[in-house]
This record gives sequence, structure tokens and C-alpha cells, in this order.
Amino acid sequence: MTFWIVFLVLFSDLWYTGSTSRTGPNIVLIFADDLGFGDLGCYGHPTSITPNLDTMAANGLRFTDFYSASPVCSPSRRFEQLLTVFSEKVCVCILTHRAALLTGRYQTRSGVYPGVFYPGSKGGLPLNETTIAEVLKPLGYATAMVGKWHLGIGANGSFLPVYQGFDHYLGVPYSHDQGPCQNLTCFPPDTKCYGMCDQGAVLLPLFFNNTIIQQPVSFPDLVPHYNKFTTEFITESARKKQPFFLYYASHHTHYPQFASALTAGKSLRGRFGDALMEFDTSVGVILEALEASGIQNNTFVFFTSDNGPELFRMSRGGNAGLLKCGKGTTYEGGMREPAIAYWPGRIQPGVTHELGSTLDLLPTIAALAQAKLPSAQLDGYDMSNILFSSQSSMRKTMFYYPVDPSIKLGVFAVRYGKYKAHYYTRGSSHSETTPDHDCHIIAGLKAHEPPLLFDLESDPSENYNLMVYDYQPEYDLVLKKIQELKAQFEETMVFGESQTGKGSDHSLEPCCNPQCTPKPACCSCIP
Amino acid sequence: MTFWIVFLVLFSDLWYTGSTSRTGPNIVLIFADDLGFGDLGCYGHPTSITPNLDTMAANGLRFTDFYSASPVCSPSRRFEQLLTVFSEKVCVCILTHRAALLTGRYQTRSGVYPGVFYPGSKGGLPLNETTIAEVLKPLGYATAMVGKWHLGIGANGSFLPVYQGFDHYLGVPYSHDQGPCQNLTCFPPDTKCYGMCDQGAVLLPLFFNNTIIQQPVSFPDLVPHYNKFTTEFITESARKKQPFFLYYASHHTHYPQFASALTAGKSLRGRFGDALMEFDTSVGVILEALEASGIQNNTFVFFTSDNGPELFRMSRGGNAGLLKCGKGTTYEGGMREPAIAYWPGRIQPGVTHELGSTLDLLPTIAALAQAKLPSAQLDGYDMSNILFSSQSSMRKTMFYYPVDPSIKLGVFAVRYGKYKAHYYTRGSSHSETTPDHDCHIIAGLKAHEPPLLFDLESDPSENYNLMVYDYQPEYDLVLKKIQELKAQFEETMVFGESQTGKGSDHSLEPCCNPQCTPKPACCSCIP
Repeated sequence: MTFWIVFLVLFSDLWYTGSTSRTGPNIVLIFADDLGFGDLGCYGHPTSITPNLDTMAANGLRFTDFYSASPVCSPSRRFEQLLTVFSEKVCVCILTHRAALLTGRYQTRSGVYPGVFYPGSKGGLPLNETTIAEVLKPLGYATAMVGKWHLGIGANGSFLPVYQGFDHYLGVPYSHDQGPCQNLTCFPPDTKCYGMCDQGAVLLPLFFNNTIIQQPVSFPDLVPHYNKFTTEFITESARKKQPFFLYYASHHTHYPQFASALTAGKSLRGRFGDALMEFDTSVGVILEALEASGIQNNTFVFFTSDNGPELFRMSRGGNAGLLKCGKGTTYEGGMREPAIAYWPGRIQPGVTHELGSTLDLLPTIAALAQAKLPSAQLDGYDMSNILFSSQSSMRKTMFYYPVDPSIKLGVFAVRYGKYKAHYYTRGSSHSETTPDHDCHIIAGLKAHEPPLLFDLESDPSENYNLMVYDYQPEYDLVLKKIQELKAQFEETMVFGESQTGKGSDHSLEPCCNPQCTPKPACCSCIP
Repeated sequence: MTFWIVFLVLFSDLWYTGSTSRTGPNIVLIFADDLGFGDLGCYGHPTSITPNLDTMAANGLRFTDFYSASPVCSPSRRFEQLLTVFSEKVCVCILTHRAALLTGRYQTRSGVYPGVFYPGSKGGLPLNETTIAEVLKPLGYATAMVGKWHLGIGANGSFLPVYQGFDHYLGVPYSHDQGPCQNLTCFPPDTKCYGMCDQGAVLLPLFFNNTIIQQPVSFPDLVPHYNKFTTEFITESARKKQPFFLYYASHHTHYPQFASALTAGKSLRGRFGDALMEFDTSVGVILEALEASGIQNNTFVFFTSDNGPELFRMSRGGNAGLLKCGKGTTYEGGMREPAIAYWPGRIQPGVTHELGSTLDLLPTIAALAQAKLPSAQLDGYDMSNILFSSQSSMRKTMFYYPVDPSIKLGVFAVRYGKYKAHYYTRGSSHSETTPDHDCHIIAGLKAHEPPLLFDLESDPSENYNLMVYDYQPEYDLVLKKIQELKAQFEETMVFGESQTGKGSDHSLEPCCNPQCTPKPACCSCIP
């Protein structure tokens, strides 16, 4: 592959990017896409083949009550930022800018609402946010991001990862159903992108750092390239005894499903299963690289997903297991995620029922690395006492925001201990084809007074509203307490300027960059 | 406890009941009640606390595609029969008869249809059926049953376990919501029987062999008594080097929920969780007894449940996980069960996606013990190649019968490989309070032509009828093949005389036995 030669040339020159001070452990964050609570073998799916994640779960700490901060994609990706600017410019398109990522804070604070970023989005994650990568860089960490960014590209790529805390970036900047003139999302079925993709029609670019090195990306080769990158990054960092932060954010298992020849047709679960199997394989590659370098006992690995499963893709979408609804909703299926913490010798194998959230990763990682916390108001808590001492979570609440403009109404639901109160509910097109009509788009916005109240420990499926089925006077007190917590939280919430609301401009799409020549005929570059 | 002293006197005299020939392994079958596919920690439930079953799963073979043969209770309990007649008569009531259990054959053959047995049922499992206990007795096995029988009592107890293959029996003869003048089943909530039961109003009897030793049974003491019995039986059999067969059929987690002081209020999942935790604890007691006797490497332990979860008890019922509907239906939630095979040193830890069924236990156990198979037509297959060689199942089909008189229409659904075709569907009062209206009792009997067709590997939740959502001409061939298999199966099916259809007679109820004095005032003894 020509692109791979170019990439290796770039990469070999810039591998070492910081000091060799070794104050903290290596950090690996693995992020799946649209993977549901019930999608992994170790979370009960009967036909998923996920041996590597299952092994992580068996030898690590599996969370049963871990939450994403949003039921859709972009707002959940709030992790990183930039120190080192990488200026090599070769290949097809060149983009030079800098930016920052939302980190450890609700998406409402940084403006990543409502909805998600598109190829031509004008907005992106604001520069004044501090990310995990930024937190770790002063300690000499090498930082790399691999995979799906989806936090904006902006004019001249000003929002790309290399401007948001990462020494290196290899990946695609947005969802692979969002590229211009692509045809992967026919419904039903999504047959185009399976095993071999209809590449000519897909204009998703592959970036290395701030440079497009392949456009359209070759889907069947993508994960093998990622695997090579992650292995090299880990191996070289270990060789140089430099602590590192690897953020691997896969496009799997977002629709449309595809997989390389390694797993296409190999799973029991059809196209979704093949994609999931490829993702699991890439997790195995990371774990193997850690072992091969002998650093598995000095590396904190955390896996989770960005939001609940896509339920309008029939069997090509994920599965929320016993949780209600999926992506796009503030029911449990929309935001409760599989999550595994893995650190051989440090984290005892087991299962924790303590509350956790992706919001908690920055404070936790900062504590592990003994790094300075950002000065901005954080919404996360250090999870160390869950991870290392089997103690109670510092987190007692979760606040559930919707994905659409009704986010301005405030939080839709609040979890407090085992209780969850829904102030508003609505279905979503993303959760359309379940037998539960509450999940569908026709289940419009509905305010609840009194709120719906569920006991998530005895009723994780949110089937039995306690105020109706099992009313006890004490529940009024529970709702009163939740109302107080909600009011306190919302009082501190300052909505940042909406970044996704800034609209799109076709000329910002990667395929419309004047330097991207020859420009494919299908690019829509009229502003 | 007076009853316990009586029991020990009886027990100590009769412990040793066969030869000491040691040709096969010990066999322990553990059967839960109304436990759903999604109810265990190792099957993905977020708040169940089931460390012993989870350990069995981690160190044994966990099935993802294991089926009960019926979506309600009595027909699934088709395991055993009698050789040794035990004639000691002491205590309150005395019953002397003999009988046999359905074994390894669809319930339609033996007449355990439609529905279940009641305290005064005239019928029971016919005597001419051969059971696992009968299969093993000629090889010198000691046999014991502990727990819920629910295969009929009959006049003078003619259908009790001691007349159906078991040297010993300690347990209750029917469901604990079925006793006369008991008040445990109020809906909602079922608060009476939690921790401490309203004993005076519950007339469920506790039998030792053919003798009622406690009436009403003391619910909070029941599982502790069972634990003592199983430990003694295992320990003594091991001491005497006699191979044994222990069938432990718990009433947990059938409604109404209760638990002893050991677990009441201790789980995260409310009353259901407490009951499940107590069941799991009793599994741990069995495993500990095997280890303490040093025979864990010579004992085949198999755990499963009788049918899907009760879904009209709100959070006091179980959970089918990602499967559709629950008890009483022929959707997957009604009949697919958690199942674990455990034999340290013989069965490699792992997960199998091969098809299995409770129907297969007799042929499998017979093969393990090198015992002679019954001459009657069996519906089960030897699972040895799944258990010991990770090979394909000999079972390629499952046939799903309904629970009501519409069973005469034939099988409602057929699984063939990964495909499942529904010829008829109907909801059930047992699956009432799910958000899926197909599960409810108002979803009446409906014939499907062409049948609904699902791919259970890519769509285990039975959401997407392939004939509608993703029609391919090849599916017509699949349906044709399934139709042929259905016709072949039904051609061999000779319906036995309905045992449950023989009706009830109040005078047959244990509390109406003339020798049961003083007769509680609430007994309804008018025939």
C-alpha cells in the first residue's frame, strides 16, 4: 500500500515526542461505537464472539453500571488535546491547525450539542477545553489516537486530534455513513459495505496526523492498518521506556457494518458479528503488544463504548440486552455501556456494581499518573477506590441529556443511587425497530409530573414505574431528593456555545479542500 | 427442629441403598425454577449476585443455546423413577405407593400436558416411563431428590419421587403458590412470604420420602434444610464410595419470592434477588461438599432451569435478557435457559453455542455411566461430544410445544440450526408485564402462513422476521426443510393420555388425607 509506506516514513521520524520521565502507568483507552450493553459475550450475548474482551473481563474488573455521558456519538468523545504540532506535509491534502477536546465535562459545557458533527461542520471541540492528552503531556507521555475522531474537522482541519493533544493520529474524522456521495446506508439491507466496500463511492478520508493519506479510505484495510499502528506505537514507546497514552476509538460497530477478510463471514452473528469480531481482534492486538513488550503490568487499559446500540438496522445493529431502548434515548439502553478496567496485578478480577461514567476517566487517569487536573469545572470523579480497593464509588448520580434541541429543557433523567427518575422521555429513530413502542420516533417528547421512578437494581429494564405499580410514601422523598440534586446540578451548568449548531459548509469537507486534487466528481463543494 | 430430628432418624437408617460398584461418575443435576436466560451474573444481569453459578460458568462449559422442553414447569421435570421402595412410616401422614417419571422424552408422549399439576391432581407421571434414576440404579447408584417435585402426588402419594426412582426424597410436591388457603400470591405486591412467611396460612407440605414431616412447611427454614440434606447425602455417598445421583430441583425463583435469614435483604435485586442469592448459595453448598469429599473430579454437575421467567410479577419475576417474552410462550424467552456443565479436569472451561436441551440429559448421563438406555423412544441426544470434545451437537432441531390445550395443534415452532420458524404464536398471562405486546395474554392464538422465520444467531431477540424484513428466495427452501422436519417429528409423536387433564379431587390434597390430623381448618376436603 502506497499510503502505508508514506505513513511509515512519517511515523518513524516522529516516534519519540517527549521526555522519558516515567512517573505514571501507560494508559490505553479503547472505545467502541454504538455497541450495546448486551453485545458482548461477557455481557450475555449468545452468539457474539469476543474472546479478547471476554478475557479482559475475566481477568479485569467488569462494570455493570457504567455510563456514557450522551446517547449519541460526538458528545461522548471528550478525551484529548494537543501540545506537539506536527508539520510534515506530504500526500494529497494538507491541513495545519490546532484545537482541543472536551474532557471529563458534560457536552453541554463545551458546546457539543445538539446532535453530532458532519463532514462540513463549521464547529468542533473548543480549544479552551483540557483533555486527557493535555493532562498527560506535561509528564512526558507519548500520545496517539487511532480511529474515529468525530469531534469536528473545521476550516483547514483546525479541530483534528493533532491539534488537540495527540502526537500522532491515524484515523477517520467522522462516521463512515457520513461521507459525501457514499452509498453504504441503504435500508434495508446495507449490503454494499461488507467484506469489500464500494470504495469508489465512499469519500471518507484517512488521516495520518493532519494529512489525508487515503481518500476514499479502503474499508477492508482499515483495521489491519490500525492494528499495525497500535502495535508499533506500543512497541516503540516501550522500547524507549516512554510512558504513553493510546486512545483507540474504533468505528466498529457503527453502521453500516463491514470487516476485513480476517473476520468477514467468520462470526456467528452476521455482518454485525463480523464487525464486532474484527473490533475484538484489534483489542487482542493491543493486549498482545503490551504483553510482548512486557509492560502489561504497568498499563491501565479501559474499554467502553460511546452510546447504546443502533436499533434501526435490524440485525445489523447492536443489542441493549435487558435494557430499555437504545441509541438516541435517555432510557438505560441509550447510555449504559459495557465497560472493563484491566491492569494485571493491580486490578483484582471481578464485577463491580458501582456507578461509573466516561466522565470519570480523566480524573481517574490524572490520579494514576499523578497529573494536575484541569482548572475547568469537571463532572467526573476519580474511580481509583472502585478499581483498586473495591470501595464505593464517589459518583452517586448520573444526569441524562437528550440529543436534540430539547436539551435546552435540561436533563431528561437523573440516576441517584439505585433510583432513576425520568422528567422527560422521547423515542428516537435510532431505536426504531424494537417491539417497545416507547423507543420509537413516534413516541414524542413527553413531560412527566410526577417523574417516572424506577428502581434500577431490581428493575434494570425500566418496566415498572414505582409511582404506579408499587407506590410507597417514601418514594415522594426520593423524588424530592432527586429534584434537589437536579436543581443543584443545573444551577452549575453553563451551556457553552453550540458547536454542532454552527452549521455546515460543503467547502469544509475534506474532499472539497482546494489542495485535494483531483477532486472526485461526487464532491459537493458549493458552499 | 422436631422435624429435623425425625428426618435424621429416618435418614441415618437408610443411607446406604445399593451396591458399591463404581463404574461411572457421580451425577448432580441442579434445576432452578422460572429462572430466565438473563437472570444470572454470568449471563449478563447487572445486579444479580450469583458467585457460585458464575464460578461454575467460569470453570465449566456455559451454554448459550440450551432449551427446556416446555415453557411451563411440570412438563420440564421429566427425569426419574423408582427401584427401591422405602416403607418406613412415621410422622403426620403416611403415603405408600410407587410411580415413575418422564425422562428424556417430550411431555406429550407421557401425558404431562396441558398445563401443570395441582395439589389435588388425579394424574401424575405415568409409571411406565423410565427415568434417569432408573437408568442409574442398576449400576449401584444411590439416588436422591431434593426440592420441588411437581409431577403429581396422586391417591396416597402414588406419584411421589420415592416411587419414581429415588432412594430418598426431601422436598415439596408442588409449587408454593398452589397450596390450599395460602395467601402468598397477592398481586401486587407479594409481601407475605419474604424472609418470614405467613406460615399459618400456607399448607404446602414438606415430605421426607413418602412422609409428610412438616405441614405447613417453614419457608425460611426450607433451603437450610435442603443444604443439610445435600451435604449429608454427598458426604456419606463419598465416604461409602458409592456413586450417586443427586437431583436438586429448587423452588427458587418461582413466585412468590422468599428467602431465609441468610440472604433475605442481602441482594441488590430485591426479593427476587434474595431468592436467587439463596439458590446460588445452595449451589455453593453442593460444590463445597463435593470438594470437601474430594470427589469434584469425579462428578458431573449440570445446572439449568425449567422454563423462562415469570413476567407478570414485576420486579419479583425473572428476566429473559435479550430474548423475547418469557414463561408460557414459545418465543425464545419461554424456553431458552441458562445452562452450565461443570466437571473439573474433564470439561474444559468455555462457552458453547451448540444446541442442547434438558431432553439430552438422560442420554448424556447414560453414556457417562455406561448405562443401558430405556427402550422407549427418546427425544434426546448424547451431548458428550459437546462437553468433552468441543464438537458439533448431534441435536439439529428443537420443537416448541405450547402449554395449553392448543398443544393438540402440534408444535408451535421449530428451530433448525440457526433458523426458527413460528407456525403459531400466542402470548401468556405469565409474560404479561413486558413492553412487548406479543407476549401478553391478549395476543391470542395466531397461525402464520408462511411461518415467521428468524435467524437466531444474528437476531436472538426475534425482532426481524426474515420473510418480511430481508426476504431472500433461499428462505423458501429453509421453510420447506423445516416443514419436512416438523412433519417427520409429528408423525412419530403419539400423544399419551393427558395426566393433567384428569382433573383434581380435593380429597387427594395432602392436607385432606384422613391420617393428617389435626386437619387444618382451611383444608378444602370436599371432593
